[in-house]
Amino acid sequence: MQIAMVGLGKMGGNMVRRLRRGGVEVVGYDRSPDTVARLAAEDGMVASVSVKDAVDKLNSPRVVWLMLPSGEPTENQIRDLAALLTRGDVVIDGGNSNYKDSQRRGAWLAEQGIGFMDAGTSGGIWGLENGYCLMVGATPEVAKIVDPVLKVLAPAPDRGWAHVGPVGSGHFTKMIHNGIEYGMMQAMAEGLELLRGKQEFSLDLAEITELWRHSSVVRSWLLDLTAEGLKNDQALDSVAPYVADSGEGRWTVVEAIEQGVAAPVLSLALQMRFASQNETGYGYRLLSMMRNAFGGHAVKKAGSGK
Amino acid sequence: MQIAMVGLGKMGGNMVRRLRRGGVEVVGYDRSPDTVARLAAEDGMVASVSVKDAVDKLNSPRVVWLMLPSGEPTENQIRDLAALLTRGDVVIDGGNSNYKDSQRRGAWLAEQGIGFMDAGTSGGIWGLENGYCLMVGATPEVAKIVDPVLKVLAPAPDRGWAHVGPVGSGHFTKMIHNGIEYGMMQAMAEGLELLRGKQEFSLDLAEITELWRHSSVVRSWLLDLTAEGLKNDQALDSVAPYVADSGEGRWTVVEAIEQGVAAPVLSLALQMRFASQNETGYGYRLLSMMRNAFGGHAVKKAGSGK
Repeated sequence: MQIAMVGLGKMGGNMVRRLRRGGVEVVGYDRSPDTVARLAAEDGMVASVSVKDAVDKLNSPRVVWLMLPSGEPTENQIRDLAALLTRGDVVIDGGNSNYKDSQRRGAWLAEQGIGFMDAGTSGGIWGLENGYCLMVGATPEVAKIVDPVLKVLAPAPDRGWAHVGPVGSGHFTKMIHNGIEYGMMQAMAEGLELLRGKQEFSLDLAEITELWRHSSVVRSWLLDLTAEGLKNDQALDSVAPYVADSGEGRWTVVEAIEQGVAAPVLSLALQMRFASQNETGYGYRLLSMMRNAFGGHAVKKAGSGK
Repeated sequence: MQIAMVGLGKMGGNMVRRLRRGGVEVVGYDRSPDTVARLAAEDGMVASVSVKDAVDKLNSPRVVWLMLPSGEPTENQIRDLAALLTRGDVVIDGGNSNYKDSQRRGAWLAEQGIGFMDAGTSGGIWGLENGYCLMVGATPEVAKIVDPVLKVLAPAPDRGWAHVGPVGSGHFTKMIHNGIEYGMMQAMAEGLELLRGKQEFSLDLAEITELWRHSSVVRSWLLDLTAEGLKNDQALDSVAPYVADSGEGRWTVVEAIEQGVAAPVLSLALQMRFASQNETGYGYRLLSMMRNAFGGHAVKKAGSGK
């Protein structure tokens, strides 16, 4: 089996390494020639100087896996790639694209006889060793072509991956996965903050998260990572209380609205990230101003410290 | 090592079995003589006909582990037990008591020279095989006496249990553990409901939860159990959409209020359980009535089906 991997960052680079270990021939391309050269030297990936060069180095049917930021970079690459491919070739989007974009792109490629797979990919920087959790959407024909590659990237040939449905369903499933992740993370963070806030008990959060890893109901990979992080530092003074969010948390909440199905905890976990990102605190300033206006309550002046 | 176990239900009964396997002598008592007789026949637990009888069968210092429903049953038992014990004896409350009750009871027993340990116990019906996750609060002296018992009940002598702090801190830690559990469960349920709601993809929830168990970010014991349950039945028609709650979810939210620390997701996960328990839907009836009042919007009549 042979594929091209376009985008050799944290995810794409490690996926190339895992594919090479599994005996898959990989032609790699990245905007950074250094990255390409390093991977080629390290594990026998075939280097390429452009996407066209990468495509030219593949046999038919050509399978090109994109591991790019979602939105414009993926959109533009699929546009350009379509011109280089012919009927029967396959494009895989392994990034975190919106499933509706994947449905549109899949339909557009299908008009040209080009296959498409949306491969929701979880596992982060641990995927190289543990394998990647893969949720793929595609026609049965395309799934059959890509099958050997998925079996190498997955934790094992028979688990941690599935062809969950038609084009779009892979990214949809990954989106919901990430929505759940937001909720689980927020629940854990809130509980641990309450443990830390109980000063009379002087609780050791590293000890408690470590003990919960064994036989408790909340044991989970997120807890494993949290326990590991707290072992090194539980004051977290060097970490700003600012939590970024990427598209999938937002799209999950939009999906709940579109379905008209209540998902209050997933929504609120997202909103809490927004609250953490809010540097002006304008809403809080307003509330303080209003309390003063109707009740004469003291207003804490800006810059007076916490 | 030798202890008495009072309350031989789902939790207490299996704990006796695990203690016996670990070579601990156990004198057991339960309101049901049949339960006592069964455990005595099964694993060599010493039967007793009353708490007094159980206490009389122990050597000093006598250690009595209570595994009773929280609230009155535990309160009354500790009151009665105190009269049977003498200085240096130890009472352990392994149930789900409110940590403030444990602090009060611990102080009251201490006045009489009786030691107290609050042992937050997680692991449910799986604890017999996997061991119990134990979070205990006690003085160092009491912790030292109970140490051998904890090492047998825990998943292993060196993990899954910890003496986290003074009296009260064990039940406090277990309370927060359960609060986090509420949030994680709600997040997972909301996400899976959105997957199921996406009819155009006809997703197989058993397949998806099974694949997430491997290398995904949401992998967890709760996901393992969910995947197992969905394998048998993913329509869940026979399960009523009613979710009970026990004290700890509520107490966690009260704790957040007392600390003045935001825990919106834990709070909302609890509120969603209340919403599931609400059979009258009076608030929704009011909302529908109001919409009609100000906007003339149609009111769906009761009994007209969903």
